[in-house]
Amino acid sequence: MSRFWSEGVDALRPYQPGEQPKVEGLVKLNTNENPYGPSPRALAAIRDAANDALRLYPDPDASALRTAIAADCGVPDDHVFVGNGSDEVLGHAFAGLMKRASPILVPDVTYSFYRVWCELYRIERVPVPLDDAFRLRVDDYARPCGGVVIANPNAPTGIALPIGEIERLLRLQPAVPVLVDEAYVDFGAHTAVPLVSRHPNLLVVRTLSKSHALAGLRVGYAIGQPALLEALERVKGSFNSYPLDRLALAGAAAAVADRAHFERSRDRVVATRAWLAGALAAMGFEVLPSSANFLFVRHPLHDAARLQAVLRESRVLVRRFTDERIAQFLRITVGTDDECGALVRVLREQMG
Amino acid sequence: MSRFWSEGVDALRPYQPGEQPKVEGLVKLNTNENPYGPSPRALAAIRDAANDALRLYPDPDASALRTAIAADCGVPDDHVFVGNGSDEVLGHAFAGLMKRASPILVPDVTYSFYRVWCELYRIERVPVPLDDAFRLRVDDYARPCGGVVIANPNAPTGIALPIGEIERLLRLQPAVPVLVDEAYVDFGAHTAVPLVSRHPNLLVVRTLSKSHALAGLRVGYAIGQPALLEALERVKGSFNSYPLDRLALAGAAAAVADRAHFERSRDRVVATRAWLAGALAAMGFEVLPSSANFLFVRHPLHDAARLQAVLRESRVLVRRFTDERIAQFLRITVGTDDECGALVRVLREQMG
Repeated sequence: MSRFWSEGVDALRPYQPGEQPKVEGLVKLNTNENPYGPSPRALAAIRDAANDALRLYPDPDASALRTAIAADCGVPDDHVFVGNGSDEVLGHAFAGLMKRASPILVPDVTYSFYRVWCELYRIERVPVPLDDAFRLRVDDYARPCGGVVIANPNAPTGIALPIGEIERLLRLQPAVPVLVDEAYVDFGAHTAVPLVSRHPNLLVVRTLSKSHALAGLRVGYAIGQPALLEALERVKGSFNSYPLDRLALAGAAAAVADRAHFERSRDRVVATRAWLAGALAAMGFEVLPSSANFLFVRHPLHDAARLQAVLRESRVLVRRFTDERIAQFLRITVGTDDECGALVRVLREQMG
Repeated sequence: MSRFWSEGVDALRPYQPGEQPKVEGLVKLNTNENPYGPSPRALAAIRDAANDALRLYPDPDASALRTAIAADCGVPDDHVFVGNGSDEVLGHAFAGLMKRASPILVPDVTYSFYRVWCELYRIERVPVPLDDAFRLRVDDYARPCGGVVIANPNAPTGIALPIGEIERLLRLQPAVPVLVDEAYVDFGAHTAVPLVSRHPNLLVVRTLSKSHALAGLRVGYAIGQPALLEALERVKGSFNSYPLDRLALAGAAAAVADRAHFERSRDRVVATRAWLAGALAAMGFEVLPSSANFLFVRHPLHDAARLQAVLRESRVLVRRFTDERIAQFLRITVGTDDECGALVRVLREQMG
């Protein structure tokens, strides 16, 4: 560390994103990108926006994009907050809602960035263990706390919580903010957005990165009641007034409006997921029931680190996490049929 | 405020950006945008990047853009940190370098976002008064502190500090971080970038918004020694791994590489600035000596709020700040010759 750093910076342990390889030709099943491209309308809107108006600041309120998202989600415009990827939205939500006198509750196995934001903002956090089947039990969250953060479907397990269980969680914790991260919800879980009107403490966070195939555009959003969103607006306005550039605003609005493209792409991913889950199960893998665009799998006889290395040698990237409880799992993004076929072939050869 | 907010959120006073009007046809001289468009090469690069690869995450290290900036600035690649506008870069610099046991020193009249970041990150700040002519006196900064933040040229005064004075400031404060915000440096001040190699405590922050006419693309950067930048990297990696989307990365790299376009545009702005300063002085305005793409002016006989309102009625937007010391000033962006001519005509009629 350097003597010029702020106090505490040396203790930060930043999030480690999955590898973004700089070489071509890899079968990239490691960061849950959508194998099908974004809406052609989104690409056209971006090209249209690539003009002299880029000399001007973007709309700091992102009004047009918020209107498009509100229409898609069936909520009023003032129930929408947007940001530079759902990571920025989540960061502002942790800073604006979760920094409290009491520790917040977070599953022990979940998106690892939650731990990082807690460290950045000095938020106390109590990890709540998933059960032996890696399911979240809502009753475990019936205890005094400063807030609750869950992902639905959970990452990296892919397991979804039924909407009734989300509602039960909200009834158990009416006095603290409850954040539901729905990055993967479009691939098979039920969104909690319809619960927002009845629950002033519910914040639902979503992203265009996966279901809308726009990981490269960095657009995420939150749905919540205006009084809750005001906290995020204040943090955002105290940090960076214009987080979404003109191209992201234009492309995202067009992508959200192209529901047919989104549905086609989602249906293909869901179909391939079913095939891949079957193929892996047939090889003896334990495959957690996924409602996301990835599978979380382990094999009783084959070490995950070795399988990952073997796949990498065959130019197939998958993700593995080092936390003890899940160190024997691989997280495999659902790619195209060809990509998933390539993965299965390598594994079959390996397992003889 | 809501009972679901984090402690302290109700006390935040977010930055107020200048108006971004949603109607067309205004003469917009209020937010220091460049009247000439971005490099055609930047626009072409963006259009090229609007393709299916947007389904993939961007390069989290922004390697190609950092290489382009490093070449332009004459520093090694590892001396460059990039972010979502210089506001995000400054935010991370405040969090990563300025949060310290002792208060930091900041001019009393300067970019008002510095106050906001101090409040967001709970950084103590001592405002150091500019002199009666709104000049920064380096000797006023020769006192114990946790860090120093200045803008050069200063905003909203436009007054530049000679490079020798920056170096003297660095010699006066070798033990704490010194941040020099060069948002406007290209329009007439001398950059402190050549001092970085000799001063491990110097961070220079710049933006493509003004001199490269890309306010709508949100790209800023910092130049500093790697050990200093590591603090910003840790904060960034604990907040949002991918702040620059693929379009911004592509467009910014192309813009930085098109030095001829940048120089033509800058020369036109500088020429118009000289004409506008003369015209306003001839009307009796006090015009602070500007090295930026704006003028900071006041009239001994005419109230600034009234002049701003009169201009607005004639569809000319300029900026005014309410801080007591500068409440009688208008900040006027240097637009095209036609735009500045329109402003001068309205003022002449008014002053009859």
